[in-house]
Amino acid sequence: MPSTLGSALATDLYQLTMAAGYFHRGMQAHVATCELFVRRLPKPRRFLLALGLDDVARHLEALRFTAEDIAFLAELPPLKSAMTPAFQAYLRDFRFTGDLWSIPEGTVVFENEPWLRVRAPIIEAQIVETFALSLVNHLTMVGSKAARVVLAAGGRACVEFGTRRTHADAAVDAARAAYAAGFVGTSNVEAARRFGIPVLGTAAHMWTMAHATEEEAFRGYFEVFPSSTILLIDTYNTPRGAMRAARVCRERLRGVRLDSGDLGALAREVRGILDAEGAGQAKILASGDLNEHSIAALVASGAPIDTFGVGTELVCSVDAPSLGGVYKLVELDDGRERRPMAKFSEGKGSFAGVHQTYRITDADGRFDRDVLALDDEGPPTLAGGQLAHALLAPVLVGGSRRAPVSSLDEIRARSAASLAALPAVIRDLAPPQTNEDRYPVEPSARLRIVTDEVRRRFVADGA
Amino acid sequence: MPSTLGSALATDLYQLTMAAGYFHRGMQAHVATCELFVRRLPKPRRFLLALGLDDVARHLEALRFTAEDIAFLAELPPLKSAMTPAFQAYLRDFRFTGDLWSIPEGTVVFENEPWLRVRAPIIEAQIVETFALSLVNHLTMVGSKAARVVLAAGGRACVEFGTRRTHADAAVDAARAAYAAGFVGTSNVEAARRFGIPVLGTAAHMWTMAHATEEEAFRGYFEVFPSSTILLIDTYNTPRGAMRAARVCRERLRGVRLDSGDLGALAREVRGILDAEGAGQAKILASGDLNEHSIAALVASGAPIDTFGVGTELVCSVDAPSLGGVYKLVELDDGRERRPMAKFSEGKGSFAGVHQTYRITDADGRFDRDVLALDDEGPPTLAGGQLAHALLAPVLVGGSRRAPVSSLDEIRARSAASLAALPAVIRDLAPPQTNEDRYPVEPSARLRIVTDEVRRRFVADGA
Repeated sequence: MPSTLGSALATDLYQLTMAAGYFHRGMQAHVATCELFVRRLPKPRRFLLALGLDDVARHLEALRFTAEDIAFLAELPPLKSAMTPAFQAYLRDFRFTGDLWSIPEGTVVFENEPWLRVRAPIIEAQIVETFALSLVNHLTMVGSKAARVVLAAGGRACVEFGTRRTHADAAVDAARAAYAAGFVGTSNVEAARRFGIPVLGTAAHMWTMAHATEEEAFRGYFEVFPSSTILLIDTYNTPRGAMRAARVCRERLRGVRLDSGDLGALAREVRGILDAEGAGQAKILASGDLNEHSIAALVASGAPIDTFGVGTELVCSVDAPSLGGVYKLVELDDGRERRPMAKFSEGKGSFAGVHQTYRITDADGRFDRDVLALDDEGPPTLAGGQLAHALLAPVLVGGSRRAPVSSLDEIRARSAASLAALPAVIRDLAPPQTNEDRYPVEPSARLRIVTDEVRRRFVADGA
Repeated sequence: MPSTLGSALATDLYQLTMAAGYFHRGMQAHVATCELFVRRLPKPRRFLLALGLDDVARHLEALRFTAEDIAFLAELPPLKSAMTPAFQAYLRDFRFTGDLWSIPEGTVVFENEPWLRVRAPIIEAQIVETFALSLVNHLTMVGSKAARVVLAAGGRACVEFGTRRTHADAAVDAARAAYAAGFVGTSNVEAARRFGIPVLGTAAHMWTMAHATEEEAFRGYFEVFPSSTILLIDTYNTPRGAMRAARVCRERLRGVRLDSGDLGALAREVRGILDAEGAGQAKILASGDLNEHSIAALVASGAPIDTFGVGTELVCSVDAPSLGGVYKLVELDDGRERRPMAKFSEGKGSFAGVHQTYRITDADGRFDRDVLALDDEGPPTLAGGQLAHALLAPVLVGGSRRAPVSSLDEIRARSAASLAALPAVIRDLAPPQTNEDRYPVEPSARLRIVTDEVRRRFVADGA
């Protein structure tokens, strides 16, 4: 979780100016319902793996304006003029008192499906936005990429190696996202400490170069780590490196790492050498700008690689390097009337009202389609043998925790089950081309009617 | 700066296993020199703006293994077996005692030019790697994108709006990077507090929708913030929004924001409305997935936009979403001999030995070319009227600070001067196609000779 979790200042200024505005306009008692979702999946994606949701609940529980925060804001233009004693007192006593509904972290999601629903006095609902989007956009981006890598690896192990390619704090959470999506471990030591994730390490080229010969480097490493020796063998010549590694460690060699060259061809050659030299037990780990496509190709070619180390492409999600999660007002209750809401600016329309997503599965839990419905209309009528699962459930009610925080292992198990239950076409790694490549998300008849009504009123309001 | 700054565990495990290895092999007194650089610029980039360097020095000054860190590592496989009392004592007393040389933060850099040089006992030099790369890769990626946006804006103001699209901690540092590169401010309140960056805010669609009418929303905002009203006018219909904003605030309207539609055409129409309705002083701010290319097009078309708000494309550096900075051993002194080093694995060659970069300028400071030389050979011989500027200078010597930390304003001024001194072709925003589009970086004759010698020895060592 970010170090700024629970901090009221880790936000966009306009959340605070609008909060001051609602306060001075006497709108504190208005109750807003907002939903977090993506309007469209990133172009190369057929699904997203929603992560970061539990941290939103933690943030809301912890959210306070400290005396230091308030003193800073009291001098900050343009907020300064609105920092009256009454508003300062409001901020001092601020607690999140609303309801938070969430889908379970580690759930596969699609476009227009709410991942989070916040129903709270309007100031509280407003100031959630920026931090919740930061959490969810970043972790879901990394986790969704990681899920694709895991699918590509087809049961072989994947390890997260990306710390050096992203912000040092983001790296710790990226390691968590990768593990949640099915990676077996990370190289990041802080992630191991914070989240209990298995941590893996080999050696770098510098170790080899710091010794007079490659053999001396291997022998030296083996002396210090006799039961966990994984040697990097591509510093000079990979097959020769494999031979030396096998001869130094024999049946105690844990593994070798390849980090350059034609990984598939080298893995075959290295496997042969290791087996011939009495190191048949040694695993082969490959790294070097790998992504889901190069891993799928290596797996398809039958390359004898046991573990893939994935860094840059994962933590920066290179083919889809941003995620456009949004947080939108869907209902407003001003004390007189409770109205479904939506905005219909150019190219940015969404469904109006408070939503629930029903995931329709067969009796074995395989996903068939999702139905997006108004929250109060209940599950759709189904054909025999099908089941409807409501995805959103309460986490905080009146600011108090209703549902326990999932452990990382629970989230990881849920991700694995989600991925396994996806239709094969949605697990395909190629960018979707036609509607056949897209998971069906169907709005209910009532949702369409209400959205049309809201659109008509919206256009009239704007006139 | 990341919350993990100074933490010894914010690293890849293999840095610690190698450290233990050097320790148990009795190599503590070997002195390694490592350099941080990029082998190649990202494809769409003609230059990089180096940022994050001062935080590396801060990290090295603060770097400690706490008792808690050591206790954790003592139980962590595979390090556990190497955590002898002697090594634990070494970690307990660990301080960075080496030398750090750096180019000034906010310097424009090119391929193969060292940004940082660490000369230290090998364990210290080794464990710097991961954290230094995290800092420098992330901030330089964002800062380099920001510099392009600033160039595209041609003197118009740019504001950083990306917090919701990146990790919450990374967002604070991204705001700093954007400001260093020439942005005028950020929406991130924590960045304002931590770095003193000007913070800007407008209002969101939710403010408008939470009121019965757009006019009521505008009037309400104006009442609370009479001297800083910037209104978002695209919720319903942008020209009507402009009219309403002008009529509500008249000569006190600070600005309006456009966030959708054809920004150029709308800006023209809105400018006309504001001027006709007595709000000629009001500025127009445009936002909505802007990048350097769309901004350059808007500027070229003469669109009357005063300020550009840039978020996603900036903080995720969408067209070049990772930066491949590396940290490589360039010299090793094992007490008997001091040898220049380099690695020549497939496609990954670099220059051997300890380097200095000389930036060759004319008398007015305009950049002509860079010369990459061995550190001990001094500046190149130049034609009349040219000057050679050595880019690397000592920051820490024997672990103690030699050079003061630059203020953010100093870094910002340096960035501006760097960008202004670039040849016009290097400031061009199109991806480089030919060598004419690339800034000349020339290795010295001696550097080539030494690198060839090291390559021959390297191949022989590997035999």
